[in-house]
Amino acid sequence: MSVLICVTGRDNTKLMHKLRLSLPEVMISEWPHCTNLSEIEFVIAWNAPQALWAQLPNLKVVQSYGAGVDGIELDHLLPHVVVTRIVDTGLADDMAEYVLTHALAHKLRLREYNLKQHLCEWKPRRVKPYNHVGILGLGELGQAAAKRFLNNGFIVSGWSRTKKSIEGVTSYHGEAAFNQFLESLDYIVCLLPLTVQTSGILNRTLFEQVPAHCVLINVARGQHLIDEDLIWALDNNKLAGATLDVFSEEPLPSEHPFWHHPLITMTPHCAAITDLTSVCEQITININASNEQRPLQNIIDRSAGY
Amino acid sequence: MSVLICVTGRDNTKLMHKLRLSLPEVMISEWPHCTNLSEIEFVIAWNAPQALWAQLPNLKVVQSYGAGVDGIELDHLLPHVVVTRIVDTGLADDMAEYVLTHALAHKLRLREYNLKQHLCEWKPRRVKPYNHVGILGLGELGQAAAKRFLNNGFIVSGWSRTKKSIEGVTSYHGEAAFNQFLESLDYIVCLLPLTVQTSGILNRTLFEQVPAHCVLINVARGQHLIDEDLIWALDNNKLAGATLDVFSEEPLPSEHPFWHHPLITMTPHCAAITDLTSVCEQITININASNEQRPLQNIIDRSAGY
Repeated sequence: MSVLICVTGRDNTKLMHKLRLSLPEVMISEWPHCTNLSEIEFVIAWNAPQALWAQLPNLKVVQSYGAGVDGIELDHLLPHVVVTRIVDTGLADDMAEYVLTHALAHKLRLREYNLKQHLCEWKPRRVKPYNHVGILGLGELGQAAAKRFLNNGFIVSGWSRTKKSIEGVTSYHGEAAFNQFLESLDYIVCLLPLTVQTSGILNRTLFEQVPAHCVLINVARGQHLIDEDLIWALDNNKLAGATLDVFSEEPLPSEHPFWHHPLITMTPHCAAITDLTSVCEQITININASNEQRPLQNIIDRSAGY
Repeated sequence: MSVLICVTGRDNTKLMHKLRLSLPEVMISEWPHCTNLSEIEFVIAWNAPQALWAQLPNLKVVQSYGAGVDGIELDHLLPHVVVTRIVDTGLADDMAEYVLTHALAHKLRLREYNLKQHLCEWKPRRVKPYNHVGILGLGELGQAAAKRFLNNGFIVSGWSRTKKSIEGVTSYHGEAAFNQFLESLDYIVCLLPLTVQTSGILNRTLFEQVPAHCVLINVARGQHLIDEDLIWALDNNKLAGATLDVFSEEPLPSEHPFWHHPLITMTPHCAAITDLTSVCEQITININASNEQRPLQNIIDRSAGY
């Protein structure tokens, strides 16, 4: 069996090394240094060039290198190709810790006090009386975040495309229930997969629905957010603040207005950094399964796009 | 029965009003506007002038206006005087939320990313791999904090004067076990009562015992900390940072070096702001109990000093 790594924009030396150690009998090459494209059955991919797919007549499996598959052009794959993704439970824990920490930071006014410390101002204020979190997306990441918030005394609502039932969470689903979900939120946390339907979902219309004291936390993808709509919402008292870990372009260019907006807290796509060991284990399991014609792990629903 | 309020340094108008409403038959006056000092049996006090106590021949109860009694000069009270304090469970929850939030803020590098945002620097780093919290003081506040940390995946050790047994917490007690308690901590949280024994406990000797990456969180009293020892520890890599909510002088004078130290996060004594309604309920219960010679709530052990 022949495997190709085509994960663009990063150094894959360690990934290659680890996979070769765990799969000594598998031929692993890295795009574009690959002389046997016609033999490739299994591709580990993220943002692969579109032209690649037509050169792989034997392709059976595309393993996304991420938790999402928005780095895979699903439309360019033949229908029989199975697409799998990474599920890292450590990732869900890290993400849950990140969203909890940043919600608490807003509630306890950490930035406000930081600024007052710089100005030598002593002005005690009560914590914000805001405890209602709304989570967009109730997959593994959304569910882990919901549990973490519940464990810390927050009231949790959730919204997803299809109906979900999670203990302690008031769940809404589908477009019809979207406005009702939004109307009383103190924090809105985006953990949606990026699909045609969810791209740009964090827009002016949404910001007009939530209460003015609501804070946005986006840890999913930069493309979920319409950047200029966020600036508009913050500058027009439609939203009290935003914490952003993901951006439509990364690293975010230094001239982008997010960097210096007083109501935006930015972190450099660090909410959940994938653990290479766990990723390699999952890829190894799927390569072996594919080789032995056993069922693969974490297959996505190609029609749903995630 | 006659009650005197002697809580200095604050406006007691609302307190007086609420108590008069709930105790219409009790004579309540506020120091120094009191003409019947010899009849006073019950004093609500905080930082009362030392000369007051000798003028109260009928004194039976001193109700501290705080969770601690370090605002009461116990040595100046006759031995038969009962001293009580406020126990506010909301206070314990708020305090637990504060210490959790600030420990997470260090773990997730919030200040570091805030600074990088100002500088337009994109430098993702993993969260700090630090999960071991040590809590000094295992009273209600310490126990509530311990539970909150345990609930959020931290490893918790605790130290107290007398032996305590709390599920999930590795407990140490007494002076002999102090160094052992300190040696592997990632965060040290002070929630001790202020007594002769604990005053100045956060000093150079302690900072030399903890690992260099340890972070101090002091939410008890400013007098627990030797200010110059903290500056020394931070400037000599004995401690990685400090979050302080309490200070030896409050408001902290603007010339104090804490304000502008890059490794100190300051908040203006706001970790737990007492709820006046709850305080008045507790005081009312104790005034009625004293009047009817029933047992009082939350009596302190005068020999232990808390």
